[in-house]
Amino acid sequence: MELLSKFHEMLLKQKAYGYVLNIAGWDSATEAPKGAFARRAELLGIISGELFQLSTSNEYQEVVNGLFEVLDDLDDISRREIKKAKKALDKITKIPKNEFVEYNMLINLAQRKWEDAKENNDFAGFSDDLEKIFSYTKKFVEYYGIDDHPYNVLLDEYETGMSMTEYDNFFETLKVDLVPFVKQVLNSGKELNDDFITIFYDAEKQKVFAEYLVDVLNFDRDRGLMKKSVHPFTWNTHSGDVRFTTRYLENFMFSSIFAAIHELGHATYEQQIDPKWDATMLSGGTSMGIHESQSRFYENMIGRSYEFWEAHYWKLQEIFPEQLGNISLKDFHLAVNKVEASFVRVEADELTYPLHIMIRYEIERMIMSNEISISELPKIWNQKMVEYLGIQPKDDSEGVLQDVHWSAGLIGYFPTYALGSAYSAQFYYTMKKEIDIDELVKTNNIQVINEWLKEKIHNFGSSKDPLELLREVTNEDFNPNYYVRYLKEKYSKLYL
Amino acid sequence: MELLSKFHEMLLKQKAYGYVLNIAGWDSATEAPKGAFARRAELLGIISGELFQLSTSNEYQEVVNGLFEVLDDLDDISRREIKKAKKALDKITKIPKNEFVEYNMLINLAQRKWEDAKENNDFAGFSDDLEKIFSYTKKFVEYYGIDDHPYNVLLDEYETGMSMTEYDNFFETLKVDLVPFVKQVLNSGKELNDDFITIFYDAEKQKVFAEYLVDVLNFDRDRGLMKKSVHPFTWNTHSGDVRFTTRYLENFMFSSIFAAIHELGHATYEQQIDPKWDATMLSGGTSMGIHESQSRFYENMIGRSYEFWEAHYWKLQEIFPEQLGNISLKDFHLAVNKVEASFVRVEADELTYPLHIMIRYEIERMIMSNEISISELPKIWNQKMVEYLGIQPKDDSEGVLQDVHWSAGLIGYFPTYALGSAYSAQFYYTMKKEIDIDELVKTNNIQVINEWLKEKIHNFGSSKDPLELLREVTNEDFNPNYYVRYLKEKYSKLYL
Repeated sequence: MELLSKFHEMLLKQKAYGYVLNIAGWDSATEAPKGAFARRAELLGIISGELFQLSTSNEYQEVVNGLFEVLDDLDDISRREIKKAKKALDKITKIPKNEFVEYNMLINLAQRKWEDAKENNDFAGFSDDLEKIFSYTKKFVEYYGIDDHPYNVLLDEYETGMSMTEYDNFFETLKVDLVPFVKQVLNSGKELNDDFITIFYDAEKQKVFAEYLVDVLNFDRDRGLMKKSVHPFTWNTHSGDVRFTTRYLENFMFSSIFAAIHELGHATYEQQIDPKWDATMLSGGTSMGIHESQSRFYENMIGRSYEFWEAHYWKLQEIFPEQLGNISLKDFHLAVNKVEASFVRVEADELTYPLHIMIRYEIERMIMSNEISISELPKIWNQKMVEYLGIQPKDDSEGVLQDVHWSAGLIGYFPTYALGSAYSAQFYYTMKKEIDIDELVKTNNIQVINEWLKEKIHNFGSSKDPLELLREVTNEDFNPNYYVRYLKEKYSKLYL
Repeated sequence: MELLSKFHEMLLKQKAYGYVLNIAGWDSATEAPKGAFARRAELLGIISGELFQLSTSNEYQEVVNGLFEVLDDLDDISRREIKKAKKALDKITKIPKNEFVEYNMLINLAQRKWEDAKENNDFAGFSDDLEKIFSYTKKFVEYYGIDDHPYNVLLDEYETGMSMTEYDNFFETLKVDLVPFVKQVLNSGKELNDDFITIFYDAEKQKVFAEYLVDVLNFDRDRGLMKKSVHPFTWNTHSGDVRFTTRYLENFMFSSIFAAIHELGHATYEQQIDPKWDATMLSGGTSMGIHESQSRFYENMIGRSYEFWEAHYWKLQEIFPEQLGNISLKDFHLAVNKVEASFVRVEADELTYPLHIMIRYEIERMIMSNEISISELPKIWNQKMVEYLGIQPKDDSEGVLQDVHWSAGLIGYFPTYALGSAYSAQFYYTMKKEIDIDELVKTNNIQVINEWLKEKIHNFGSSKDPLELLREVTNEDFNPNYYVRYLKEKYSKLYL
C-alpha cells in the first residue's frame, strides 16, 4: 500500500528531527555549560520549527486522513499507528494557530511566575496565570470536538482509556480503605533508629553504590548509561540507547539510591522493548501510568524490600563503614520505609504518597467541572491536607504552590503517578503467582524478574493500550484493591 | 539589501542543522553506548541529507551566485562571507554527483581497509584504494577549474594562501638548518633521569591534575568543559560552548597533561572569538594552521617551559608523591622535553615532529606532480626516515601506513601541523617584545597572555585569512626562521 509507505517515510523523517532534539535535550540536562543556552535556544528553535512544519504539513495531514478513511482495510498494527497519528494531529491542527502561540507564550512565562510565587509565598501573584491556563485548557478541549466531560478528555490524553469513572472509583477506594489505615500507622507510636538517614555521605562514594545497583538490576551497559543531573530522569531514543540520571545529595543518601532504582525501572522498560517498534508510531513505553508502574515496582517492591537489603546491605556498609557499620539490617530496612505525614509530594513516602495525588485529582476535577474558582485553591488544599494527612501547611509555598505541573499546563497528569503504583501492585500479585519474587531478589536473580516483565509487558512497546495490557497480563480490569492490599500487608508488618 | 538578508537567513538554517549534528557528534565521541550507533547512523543520515540539500539547493546557489556578481557593492565583511560561501559551493557543485557519491563510498571503505592493512602490515592490500583516492582527488581538482598546480589547490584548501612556494621554502629551511641540529641533539649523549615517565599513574588522580590545569590556564568553565575520550579533540559550536577532551593512559601520564594543555590552546582560541561572528560565515578559528599555532603555543611554549613547572610542579608532586616525590624539578622538566628519534608522528617530541611532517609533504608533492607511483611509497618513506631521522621503520605499519589521513582523503592537510608550530614561534617572538612571557607563566598570570592572544588573534574569528592575520600581528610575512631559532635556542640550552 503506497500511502502507508509514504506515511512511514514521513514518520521516519519526523523521528530523525525528534532524535537530534532529544540528544540536544540530554546534553542540556546533563552537561551543557551555562554559556551554551542563549544561542542553543535560537538554533534548536529552528529545528523544532522544522519538525512542527513536518508534523502538521498539508501533505502529512492528507496522508494520515487518507489512511484514517480506510482504517478497516489496514492490518492491526497499522490501524493502531494511524489512530494514534490522527489523534495527535487533531490535537494540534484543531487549535487555531494564534491561540496555540499565545498559549505557549503564557506557559513559558507562567513557569517563571510560578517560581517567583513559590519563592515569595505569593499565590495571588500567580493565580491570574493559573486562571488563564485552565481557561485555555477548557477552550482547547472544546476545539477537539470530543463529546465528553472536559476532564475526561485530559485524563485520556495522559492515560488512554482512563476517565473520571475509573479514577473516582480508584480514589474512593483509597479514601475509604487507605486513609484510616494511614492514620493508624502514623499514630502507631513506633520509634525508629534512623538518625543515619540525614548524616553526611560522600557523593563520590554514593556514586560507587549507584553503579553497583546498575549491575545488580541487570541494566545493559552496552545499550545505556547512568549520569547525574539536578532532577533524576530517564531518557531514551530506542532500546539500544537508554540513559538515566540520579543525583547525589550528601545529606540525604536515600535520594541517590532510590532515584537510581526508580529510574532503572523506567530504563529497563525501555531497554526491553522489541526494536521492531522503533520505526513505527508504537515505539516507547505505552503510557505514563504503565511507565510509572515499572519504576515504582523497581523502587518499592524490589528496592525497599527486606530481601533486597539482605542481598546488598553489606555492600553499602562496606562503602560507608563509619556511617552504617553499627546499623542493623533491620533498622536500615525500617528507615528506608519510614512513614511520615509531610507537606511535599516529592518527599513523601510510599504509603502517604497517593494521598498527595488524591488531593490534586480532586482539585483538578472540581476546576474542570466549574465547581470552584481558582482563588479558593489555597483554602481547599489546606482543608484536604488536614482531612487526609492530618497536617496543615504553614504557607502556600509548601501547599498549593509546591508543584510546577499546573504552571506548565499539565492538567490531568498527576493521577497517573498514583495509578502507576496501583498498576504495579496488580502486576505484583500476578507475578507472585508465577515466580518467587522474594527468593529471586534475595538471591540476586533479578534477571528472572526482568525476563518476566519483558515477556508480559515491556516487549510490546506502545502496541497495546495500558488498560488492555493490564487486562492481558493480570486477567482482570484495573482493580485498586490490590494496591490497598499491598500497602496494608507491607506496612502492618512494619508498623503495627 | 534583500538578497544579503536572504543569504543570512539560509545560512542560519544551515547552521542550526550543523549544530544538532555537532551535538550528536560530541555525544558519539564521548558517551553514547555501543548500542546507539546502528539506528543513530540511519537517523543522522537523514538530518545530514537535509543539510546537504539546503547547502546545495538551487535557491541557495542563486542567492550566493547573485551576491558574488555584485561583490564590489558589498561591505568588507559580507564580501568575505560571500567569497567563502562561493568557494565552498563550487567545490561541492562542480563535482558530478555520481562521482561525489562514489568517492564518499570509497573513502568510507578505504578507512576500514587501511585499519586492516596497518594491523597486518599489508601495504599492497591498501595501495589500490590509495591509488584511487589520489586519482579522484586529482580529478576533482580539475573540476574546480582553478588554473594552478593541483597540489596548490589542495594546500590552499586547508590553509588559505599557502602554496608550494611557501611550503618549499619552509621545509627547505628545516632541511638545511634544522636537520643537522636535530642530529647534533640526538648524538649529544645526554642522559636523562626519566624512568618515572612510564610508571603507573592512577587515572582518577591524573584527572585531578587535568582539572587543575583547566583552571591554571584560565579556561572559562561557564562556557565550556573538559571530558575524556579515546582521542583528544576540541569541539565547539560558538564561544559560549567550547568543549575538549583528554585521555588518561595509566602508563604514560604525560599524554593526559600535554593533550589537555594542547586542547586548551584550541579551546581558548574558540572561547575568545567575538560572538558577533556567530551568525556569519566568519565564525570559528580562521585556519588549521592558526588553530594549531594556538594549541602548540600552549603545549610547547607554555606547557613545556621551565617556568610553567616552577609554578605547578608542586601540585603534581602533591598528587603523586610516591612517583614524583624524589624527582627534581630539573629532571622533570628535562623529561617533558625529551628528544628521541622515533617512528610514529603522534608520539614524536617537539623537536623531531616537523621532520615527520616534512616526509609527508614531500611525498604528497611528488604524487600530486605525478613524479612517483603509489607502489613506491614504502621505499621512499623509509629512505626519508633514514635521511632525516637516522632510523629505519621495521615495517610499513610503523612507516607509511601509520596515519589515517590519506585513507580519509585528507591530502594537503599534513603540512598545516608543522606550519602551526612555525606560526606559533613567529607569534612568540612578537609577543615576547610586548610582554614578559616567562615571568607571567612563572607567576601564574596566564590571563595576561590570553588577553594578548584575544586582542591580536582570537577576537577576529575567521574574518582575516591566516597569512593576513600573521602579517598584521607580527608585521612580517610568514618567516620559518623564527621556528628554527626557537627550537635551537630551547634545545641547545637543554641538550648541548
